[in-house]
Amino acid sequence: MEKDISSSRLRELIRNKEWTIPTTGVSPGTVQANLVMLPREEAFNFLLFCVRNPKPCPVLDVLEPGEVEPAIAQRADLRTDLPKYRIFRDGQLEAEAEDVLDVFHEDMVSFLLGCSFSFENALLAAGLPVRNIEEDKNVSMYITNRLCRPAGPFSAPLVVSMRPMTPEEAVRAVQVTTRFQLTHGAPVHLGSPEKIGIKDLDKPDFGDPVAIHPDEIPIFWACGVTSMLAATSAPLPLVITHSPGHMFVSDLKDEDMTVF
Amino acid sequence: MEKDISSSRLRELIRNKEWTIPTTGVSPGTVQANLVMLPREEAFNFLLFCVRNPKPCPVLDVLEPGEVEPAIAQRADLRTDLPKYRIFRDGQLEAEAEDVLDVFHEDMVSFLLGCSFSFENALLAAGLPVRNIEEDKNVSMYITNRLCRPAGPFSAPLVVSMRPMTPEEAVRAVQVTTRFQLTHGAPVHLGSPEKIGIKDLDKPDFGDPVAIHPDEIPIFWACGVTSMLAATSAPLPLVITHSPGHMFVSDLKDEDMTVF
Repeated sequence: MEKDISSSRLRELIRNKEWTIPTTGVSPGTVQANLVMLPREEAFNFLLFCVRNPKPCPVLDVLEPGEVEPAIAQRADLRTDLPKYRIFRDGQLEAEAEDVLDVFHEDMVSFLLGCSFSFENALLAAGLPVRNIEEDKNVSMYITNRLCRPAGPFSAPLVVSMRPMTPEEAVRAVQVTTRFQLTHGAPVHLGSPEKIGIKDLDKPDFGDPVAIHPDEIPIFWACGVTSMLAATSAPLPLVITHSPGHMFVSDLKDEDMTVF
Repeated sequence: MEKDISSSRLRELIRNKEWTIPTTGVSPGTVQANLVMLPREEAFNFLLFCVRNPKPCPVLDVLEPGEVEPAIAQRADLRTDLPKYRIFRDGQLEAEAEDVLDVFHEDMVSFLLGCSFSFENALLAAGLPVRNIEEDKNVSMYITNRLCRPAGPFSAPLVVSMRPMTPEEAVRAVQVTTRFQLTHGAPVHLGSPEKIGIKDLDKPDFGDPVAIHPDEIPIFWACGVTSMLAATSAPLPLVITHSPGHMFVSDLKDEDMTVF
């Protein structure tokens, strides 16, 4: 399918069920977001979890209870404008769905959190390799032994995404991604995976393995999947998230996400 | 009084009512913070206000309901460790107090927000002038015509602090303060005060006026006083804040507040 389309056109296709696949590489330069919807009773604690763990959970937008049109995307509806959703009850995955019109209710609060797709464009623009894009795979993601700071009933290990580069490229990648603080920012670790509890780079916990060349080291960035683990760490009656790779595409530009 | 003392020693003096004056310039290099305490029912909306307006209201720490020892200061007690508090009922200032042991209760949530004292040290270290320090005055603060993004019952105009510099110094000041994103970051405006609704620089809404030399322009930074206006914009039964200039002194170092 054509990937170089506007974010509003993409959302229209998705709403009409004409786009049901992942959003990787669509509307290049446009900010994509992780979605978490949960009951208003726990909205404070979940927002607190995000504020306490800004690298994996950078807050792009939080809506009023029952609201579905975010400030960062005109005429969007969060109940219909993502290609695939996950529905959790009591912390357990119950179903996947192409919309949540019948599930979302007035007492739920929606959170949109930054996603590393933004800085991948910047890495490519700087001439740096993004192996998962080169190999047309989902990025490799790993659960680490680092714990996030909990808040109320929410806790989670830090999840990271990994892209391999030479040490020289790693230095440039640190500089480039530092600017993108609202989409995970600078790496959290580089080199020895065992230092952060990763046993085998060929067996990611989420996504696909990618090739690591002999002169390369793994570079690790905080990953938005952390927020899904946190949201489902408490046995809430209902939590809705996007399905991995099936993100919400906003009207923000990647450059709007930079701190300088 | 001796200003070059540790943050824990300062908090001890304050707790014993041996230090009742402003904290400007005390424990240099240590992060000072704005305090807001309010009922847990409105904690989500107030945190949302801060997240939506991160330049004036950068969140350093949020405590669980009833908690008084923040993660960023060992063995501190937010009810006793600030030299002066303000107590608001139904949005109106009721009293100032040297502790709030009898007022704070289990259903209140405490917020600590960044303060520009951190980047003032960095400006001085870069050889830039900080006129309010040179003149031993409180910084000049103004209510602007820019509105913050509201959240629930909370709204406020953006309040700014002003420091005059030459255009060349202004460029360097932008670079230096950009790093301090958790303590207001880069300026929000420079030059023509009327563009942001300021009629007379000699008549600040808070703090003292300072001299502006003929070759200088005013540089404006987002200011934590915005959070006080927001917290008292809703007629909540009880809100507690620090008294201007009488901040909470944490154990964090200014350098911990930088994004790179």
